[in-house]
Amino acid sequence: MNRQEVVTHIIGDRNISPRDKGVAFAPSNIALCKYWGKRDEELNLPVTSSLSISLKNYGAQTELQLSDEDRVVLNGKRVSPDDSFTQRAIRFLDLFRLDEQMRFTLTTQSNIPIAAGVASSAAGFAALVLALNDLFQWDLASKELSILARLGSGSACRSIYSGFVQWHAGCAKDGMDSYAEPLESVWSGLQVGLLTLSDRPKSIGSRAAMKRTVQTSVFYDIWTAKVKDDCAQLQNAIHQKDFERFGTLSESNALAMHATMLTACPPVLYWIPQTLETIHRIWALREQGVDVYFTMDAGPNIKLLYLKETEQTIVSSFQGVQRIAPFTPTDNTVNIEDVENLP
Amino acid sequence: MNRQEVVTHIIGDRNISPRDKGVAFAPSNIALCKYWGKRDEELNLPVTSSLSISLKNYGAQTELQLSDEDRVVLNGKRVSPDDSFTQRAIRFLDLFRLDEQMRFTLTTQSNIPIAAGVASSAAGFAALVLALNDLFQWDLASKELSILARLGSGSACRSIYSGFVQWHAGCAKDGMDSYAEPLESVWSGLQVGLLTLSDRPKSIGSRAAMKRTVQTSVFYDIWTAKVKDDCAQLQNAIHQKDFERFGTLSESNALAMHATMLTACPPVLYWIPQTLETIHRIWALREQGVDVYFTMDAGPNIKLLYLKETEQTIVSSFQGVQRIAPFTPTDNTVNIEDVENLP
Repeated sequence: MNRQEVVTHIIGDRNISPRDKGVAFAPSNIALCKYWGKRDEELNLPVTSSLSISLKNYGAQTELQLSDEDRVVLNGKRVSPDDSFTQRAIRFLDLFRLDEQMRFTLTTQSNIPIAAGVASSAAGFAALVLALNDLFQWDLASKELSILARLGSGSACRSIYSGFVQWHAGCAKDGMDSYAEPLESVWSGLQVGLLTLSDRPKSIGSRAAMKRTVQTSVFYDIWTAKVKDDCAQLQNAIHQKDFERFGTLSESNALAMHATMLTACPPVLYWIPQTLETIHRIWALREQGVDVYFTMDAGPNIKLLYLKETEQTIVSSFQGVQRIAPFTPTDNTVNIEDVENLP
Repeated sequence: MNRQEVVTHIIGDRNISPRDKGVAFAPSNIALCKYWGKRDEELNLPVTSSLSISLKNYGAQTELQLSDEDRVVLNGKRVSPDDSFTQRAIRFLDLFRLDEQMRFTLTTQSNIPIAAGVASSAAGFAALVLALNDLFQWDLASKELSILARLGSGSACRSIYSGFVQWHAGCAKDGMDSYAEPLESVWSGLQVGLLTLSDRPKSIGSRAAMKRTVQTSVFYDIWTAKVKDDCAQLQNAIHQKDFERFGTLSESNALAMHATMLTACPPVLYWIPQTLETIHRIWALREQGVDVYFTMDAGPNIKLLYLKETEQTIVSSFQGVQRIAPFTPTDNTVNIEDVENLP
């Protein structure tokens, strides 16, 4: 099956009555047990399952309208049709046009730094799928929305939900068993701190870096075995609210992902000097008894994991940290209009 | 067999006529295909073979005299008997005393930064074994000297020789097949550049770090398989003087060792911000067509690998680089009296 066939299979004969516009928000998410490597490049089917935490109000607010031509507006600015972001979005929208004349205006407000290691495309494609569902009034189930979001960007399938989310790798060739589901656990004291150490575009995109790692790293098979273990153990730690175990596993998983990249040929190294400085600072704090751990994605930035009671230490130790409380309704809310400098 | 039994086996009945003093020099060495992990902690038997380059005039000049008490003098200063270096040297000398009253004065001049990632103990123990051989007039073969040096410090077995050296892992329990031998290849244009980014003692000694890696890293088995491959391929690259291949393999092996450490539990991370800055600078130079590669040992420092024709670029790109021409008799010689600041 290709992407179009998956979409046709899921939408079926629902595509009848588009409204004026569809609107949706989807949060960004951070993997605690990472997704690194595809078994199918077109359908974004992963080699391993993964587990993430959604970033509450950090994400993408998207509005989709029928229009006379395809337009992509990001944070109030129209993006050139030659832009790779526009092209990716438009190729995705191609999958959903009811006829050859149908065109869309896609307006997205994102309050996360683009291309800086916080999964902006995950929130973007999840919000887009939710907006399509709203526009066309498909009324699809979350599982189906998750599969559609995956076709846009793998980790987008997790951004359909808030809280802890598991993406099942699945094994079917058409990927109909590769979707995300929320975990039931709520951990109200858990906090995530975003440290943007660099907002420059990555030296290599995660799609290409993943592919190179799968194809060339001799460590890759062991990495996938570790992910399987880590995912199971992380679920236990979450269930038991064992923060030390939760933090240790998350950190270990992230370091192993970067270790695996380092053994790709040529090596993939996203770290910059500030990354190391921050890792050493986190470990020094831990030696002083402060319960803070970190995770990292395909970029130089660091995401802190800590509990509410440690917040003051975190704020005073890490200048400019953006605090997110994934399970607290009112605390640390981020206004979606607080848009960062973007291209 | 314990260390004493190995020594007795090798020395046999040679230990008859000590002279006034024994004198020897041994070079430091840098592994291109790394030794990381022991299969026997007492005899320093490695899990894998390894391949190194000796650093010519960088090393340890040692004088050993019979004496009324044990004394260790390092770079002109007597080292306290409580010092771990002194204790290690004296425990090693215990293996060679002809009677209970025999005492030694060990005087060593070292021109390599101690504990900064250039194997200072390798040169130290190799020079000590050569000085013992000179003092007692054993007239041992290189292979036997290499085994004795290994009992002091694993990588010391390689510092018995100049040029390219291979340490055979061996498989015997008593380690009699675990010794180093020189490769015949001479590569006159090859240069090594030492970049001392930090001269502070390591956060964790390599002996403890190795042990932790072997015991806890899920990547360790793959690492050993990679070392086997890399050693064989490096020998080919050296034989063919294929510098690109030589550099790529050396760099890949070093990165994989650090990746493996990173997956130990708790992780072992020797890198500091300057390490990353330097790695990125090396890669940027390579993108500009400059043939420079690096290797790293258990520490934050970087060793550049380049050819004579690139020397001017290296000197202007890396401030304070210490240049070594392992195969050139007169170039870049280092005076053994040029002693660095040491404890």
